[in-house]
Amino acid sequence: MTTSSPAPVMGIRDEVAALKRERIITAAVELFYERGYENTTLDAVAERLGVTKPFIYAHFSAKTELLAEICTRGVASAVRAMEAALAMEGASPAEKLAALGRRFVTAVLQSQKLIAIFTREEKNLLPGDFQRVSRMRRDFDHKLSGLLEEGVAQGEFRIADPRLAALAIGGMVGWAYVWYRPAGRLSVEELADEMAALVLAMAQAQPARRTAAKVSRAPASRAPRTAATRGARR
Amino acid sequence: MTTSSPAPVMGIRDEVAALKRERIITAAVELFYERGYENTTLDAVAERLGVTKPFIYAHFSAKTELLAEICTRGVASAVRAMEAALAMEGASPAEKLAALGRRFVTAVLQSQKLIAIFTREEKNLLPGDFQRVSRMRRDFDHKLSGLLEEGVAQGEFRIADPRLAALAIGGMVGWAYVWYRPAGRLSVEELADEMAALVLAMAQAQPARRTAAKVSRAPASRAPRTAATRGARR
Repeated sequence: MTTSSPAPVMGIRDEVAALKRERIITAAVELFYERGYENTTLDAVAERLGVTKPFIYAHFSAKTELLAEICTRGVASAVRAMEAALAMEGASPAEKLAALGRRFVTAVLQSQKLIAIFTREEKNLLPGDFQRVSRMRRDFDHKLSGLLEEGVAQGEFRIADPRLAALAIGGMVGWAYVWYRPAGRLSVEELADEMAALVLAMAQAQPARRTAAKVSRAPASRAPRTAATRGARR
Repeated sequence: MTTSSPAPVMGIRDEVAALKRERIITAAVELFYERGYENTTLDAVAERLGVTKPFIYAHFSAKTELLAEICTRGVASAVRAMEAALAMEGASPAEKLAALGRRFVTAVLQSQKLIAIFTREEKNLLPGDFQRVSRMRRDFDHKLSGLLEEGVAQGEFRIADPRLAALAIGGMVGWAYVWYRPAGRLSVEELADEMAALVLAMAQAQPARRTAAKVSRAPASRAPRTAATRGARR
């Protein structure tokens, strides 16, 4: 566009505002993660950014609004992983669960600090924000147990209590924020693959469409695909 | 003892001191859990107990000592579960893992508030306490991955990466402090049994000593015992 319409100007203004918001959130994440929410003042956030407190107030009305944004982003990353897996057209429950496992692990590792802050500081959210974020989390659990139930109904999974298994999967993956170190032994991709294999093993997944050729002494349909093809026991 | 030796008097004094310490810890657990560590003063703990602050200082030198005691108890409950399972004489790795699963889940549910406080407030521990508690947790993870490796070596488990699987199990069980409600759908015993079954499924446990008679279409040795005998798919 070479016209002098106000649209591009507004676009830049919006972009600048978004960029400033992102910088504020990033600084708040670092400080809430290192020192805790209660121990962090907006003055400290401003200082870390080299700006004044009114700069922050131009974008966030209060510290609690920053916390709400951070917690929402943490949970939203898991919700997006779920939605992408459930949207896989023509995929079986086992294929969706494998994809969810990989995406969910990746989301947690990439959002490690957001998830840590959410887990630790949830009780400092305002009641309305707390309820909204809790609803997002319950929705995640509900969709996951729905996927597990679907797999049980189709004979792909063997799970006695899908609702409990959904909470167990949420825990084994979500907890990764505690032990994950970016410079650790395994890459994000390796962790995503291995953890997804553990999720499928927990569901006793029996893939409907693929065969696990490498496993001997058992019907292929009973051998969890991932553990076999990824070389379990090595 | 009917003599007038000072021993029984000292005994009572010690017992009273221990009782007072327990009451202080219980009140601190409630308040740290409800309001968070930073938002709780020793005055508030004293008020909840109907005592003065010097009463508390007679037993704890500072709020951080209370936090250290609470975090230590939370982790110690899981460590005791581990030690009891590993001490089972003549038990196979699968039997030890099943026992550990049940005991670990029970410990987490019974210590729900301690584990919650530990997870949320760990960063408020003094460096020495933080290191000591972290060492207890690493020791737990280390013993669990040792048990998984032993089971793999004996052909009872199929796990590609026992160290990662140990962290996954720690997460799926430890996370229960987030969702467990004492008045919920399942009792502590039911939760312990179901979660232990999920742990064995994740390890793809093939019991060495027992047969799973109810499973058809597959060699009994490949069918995880717990899921089969507990009626998976119902």
